[in-house]
Amino acid sequence: MVQQNTRAQIGVYGLGTMGSALALNLADHGFDVAVSNREADWIDNFLPEADGLAGTVTGHADLAGFVQAIAAPRTILFMIPSTKPMDQMIDAIKPLLSKGDTIIDGGNADFNDTRRRSKALDGTGIHFVGMGVSGGEEGARHGPSMMVGGSKHAWAQLKPMAEAIAATFQGDPCVAHLGPDGAGHFVKTVHNGIEYADMQMIAELYGLMRDKAGMDAGRIGQVFDGWRAGPLASYLIEITATALASTDAATGCPVVDVIRDQAGQKGTGRWTLIEALNMGQSASTIEAAVGARGWSSEGDARRAAQDLLDPAAQPAGMPDVDDMENALLAARILGHAQGFRVLSAASQEFGWDLDLARIAEIWRAGCIIRSALLDEFAAAVRGGLPHGHLILAPAMRKRLAEALPGLRRVVASAALVGQPMPALFAALAWHDTMALGRGTANMIQAQRDYFGAHGFERMDQDGVHHGDWLR
Amino acid sequence: MVQQNTRAQIGVYGLGTMGSALALNLADHGFDVAVSNREADWIDNFLPEADGLAGTVTGHADLAGFVQAIAAPRTILFMIPSTKPMDQMIDAIKPLLSKGDTIIDGGNADFNDTRRRSKALDGTGIHFVGMGVSGGEEGARHGPSMMVGGSKHAWAQLKPMAEAIAATFQGDPCVAHLGPDGAGHFVKTVHNGIEYADMQMIAELYGLMRDKAGMDAGRIGQVFDGWRAGPLASYLIEITATALASTDAATGCPVVDVIRDQAGQKGTGRWTLIEALNMGQSASTIEAAVGARGWSSEGDARRAAQDLLDPAAQPAGMPDVDDMENALLAARILGHAQGFRVLSAASQEFGWDLDLARIAEIWRAGCIIRSALLDEFAAAVRGGLPHGHLILAPAMRKRLAEALPGLRRVVASAALVGQPMPALFAALAWHDTMALGRGTANMIQAQRDYFGAHGFERMDQDGVHHGDWLR
Repeated sequence: MVQQNTRAQIGVYGLGTMGSALALNLADHGFDVAVSNREADWIDNFLPEADGLAGTVTGHADLAGFVQAIAAPRTILFMIPSTKPMDQMIDAIKPLLSKGDTIIDGGNADFNDTRRRSKALDGTGIHFVGMGVSGGEEGARHGPSMMVGGSKHAWAQLKPMAEAIAATFQGDPCVAHLGPDGAGHFVKTVHNGIEYADMQMIAELYGLMRDKAGMDAGRIGQVFDGWRAGPLASYLIEITATALASTDAATGCPVVDVIRDQAGQKGTGRWTLIEALNMGQSASTIEAAVGARGWSSEGDARRAAQDLLDPAAQPAGMPDVDDMENALLAARILGHAQGFRVLSAASQEFGWDLDLARIAEIWRAGCIIRSALLDEFAAAVRGGLPHGHLILAPAMRKRLAEALPGLRRVVASAALVGQPMPALFAALAWHDTMALGRGTANMIQAQRDYFGAHGFERMDQDGVHHGDWLR
Repeated sequence: MVQQNTRAQIGVYGLGTMGSALALNLADHGFDVAVSNREADWIDNFLPEADGLAGTVTGHADLAGFVQAIAAPRTILFMIPSTKPMDQMIDAIKPLLSKGDTIIDGGNADFNDTRRRSKALDGTGIHFVGMGVSGGEEGARHGPSMMVGGSKHAWAQLKPMAEAIAATFQGDPCVAHLGPDGAGHFVKTVHNGIEYADMQMIAELYGLMRDKAGMDAGRIGQVFDGWRAGPLASYLIEITATALASTDAATGCPVVDVIRDQAGQKGTGRWTLIEALNMGQSASTIEAAVGARGWSSEGDARRAAQDLLDPAAQPAGMPDVDDMENALLAARILGHAQGFRVLSAASQEFGWDLDLARIAEIWRAGCIIRSALLDEFAAAVRGGLPHGHLILAPAMRKRLAEALPGLRRVVASAALVGQPMPALFAALAWHDTMALGRGTANMIQAQRDYFGAHGFERMDQDGVHHGDWLR
């Protein structure tokens, strides 16, 4: 163990992929960092990686020694599972801390847990921050996007370090204090929900090209590569193109062709949906993406079904590549618009006063969903959203007017040829629902009043009414 | 207050619409019923309705007197809100009850509450039953479908009365003991979820006819009326046809045309989704229906959006009425299939050993989703579901093979002309996802491994692997 006399400016506990990368990023920017880990040998393995960086990194196997090594008021970042281990850690470290110290949970916590933990520490003088970190290992090491929830005191301590290590977009650091308690983790949850939807939409277009246009991985990769220069420019399109161009060393096949079609998921996509539902919202593109991952685990059933169910017999012209680009563009805008709706509902529900424009801004670099569009979204939100809807902002309406015909042709074609596109379908259905001034819920109200005497509102009078139903 | 010396066979507490109807139904079948209600004047108003029925009905304003009037071991049905009032009622009545007595919650409870209440009464000798009742007021009065969860002891007490008052399908009473604790309320919740989806699908086709085919309510009603004779024969189609034919006395317009397009919802649709998500399932048709009800509340935004957003400019041939009938038939099968998947997941999750065929059977009459198809579903489930999927049963595959081309044409046409059909879109997307043996989740796994080193399974080897990604 290296021990030094100077006190560190920050502590990082948990030296997994993300914790290590953030500690190195901090040291790289000249901050002195104390690190610790449950398994002491991880510390020994880690320290050499920090050699030669601008800041001093010290390792501490003992929790008390770790705490002592950090200058008060302390800022301690935990990169450990945000479930039980986080609760146990709070219990263990609390007696070692002083008033004014801050515990940061940098994991993908359920924001309800973050709220609970914040509340439990209220009045103890110890601050709790829930911080969402996006960008994967690469982002954490060289510039993540970070979403911070917690007290102003804690933010004042953390800010210089967070801004130094964050990704920047045209000089603007991609980190912000978004609100108290669970605000940061909630925004990260919705970020991940949007990421789920975007990944699913990309997979759907990949599927259309693979299964119905008969294109091989290399050719599909070229199409995605071509989209990098247009309005779809983004990290996810970039890695999709590169992944499609990658060859499996063992077989010489494209890597994507050897991967089993079964996708894992952690909790964030599902949490977005459950919170949206609890607020009377629906993020149907995210739901489609979460659903598709769930259905992907039913491989045996699907392989049997392919033989048992009738193939779509309808001939249909394939949409062209421009249509597909436009389809993905329109669906991406709609997916983000649903995510922002969930954020504004949560802001109201929890009294967070979220700055949606700032959220869009800190997503412009560093995080997985960074894209050229996010800068347009940020500008659109800054300009004010008619009726609170991103899709009604002038710039977005223009984009949609151009891109929607492509989405319509892709959905229609997929419907006729039997290509599954749940997220693209959901995106279009939501757009068209919002674009229909007189909806069809009057029919549902008619049924409910007919069989359950639930009553309905009338167009021409106030109050609750019942129908003069024939029986 | 009428007081009698004979003891009642059952108590009914809560004389709202549903409680009154069930009490009268019991008396109609010769059972002696003690009734009570928080507001004593409701009892006085109710008693005359029971005059002349085969069973004796006595009213009791006092809770102790009500309990005393029921023969032990007591069966007491509560038709009160299944939220806090139910907990308060349990606390109030528990000291008045004896071992072997049964409390029945006949409301639309969250099954998690039912599980909690059952557990709290475990070991007290008092039994708790969660019973879902479907069929609205009419059903409750003359034959509901009832889904019972609780102990065998409680079911033995309740069974003769429940079977006597239930709806029957070809002589078979539409009531069953489905499992312990929350099983009955869970099945009722999923029933309501399927009901949400079915109502939404009907509303979507109504919308297509109204907005794109330019048909008036009367003409649309005739189309639905025509469908009553075919495979769509069902209560919901029947009341849709009748509702569309009904005239508003105040304006002389069709009633549906004066109803505001904003649909209310209680918790059951949302609960179905949250429980499905918690089990890694997705009931996307139900999600679409819940989402559509939520979006219906944004009338101002939608009316503004209709002017701001570009109308779909694609000309497309309208699908014909046969296509629409087939679309609804296919979507209805798919919606029910998703509901049954949620039931089988819950059966496994909670160790309930649910008899899915019996559930389909007790839904054939009395409940809101009763339909000709439910008898086919029941037979299909009895015959065994390949890979646990209703859509893979031979009879359903035949139905789908015939009906899917219509659903494909309706979805494609709606996509091109801009008619919102979220539930029909979701139904088709799910079908096509299940019918694609090699899905597209390999692309999602490629992305996740690329940016987060999450690893993936290979087609050709066991274990977790990482890709040879170009960087």
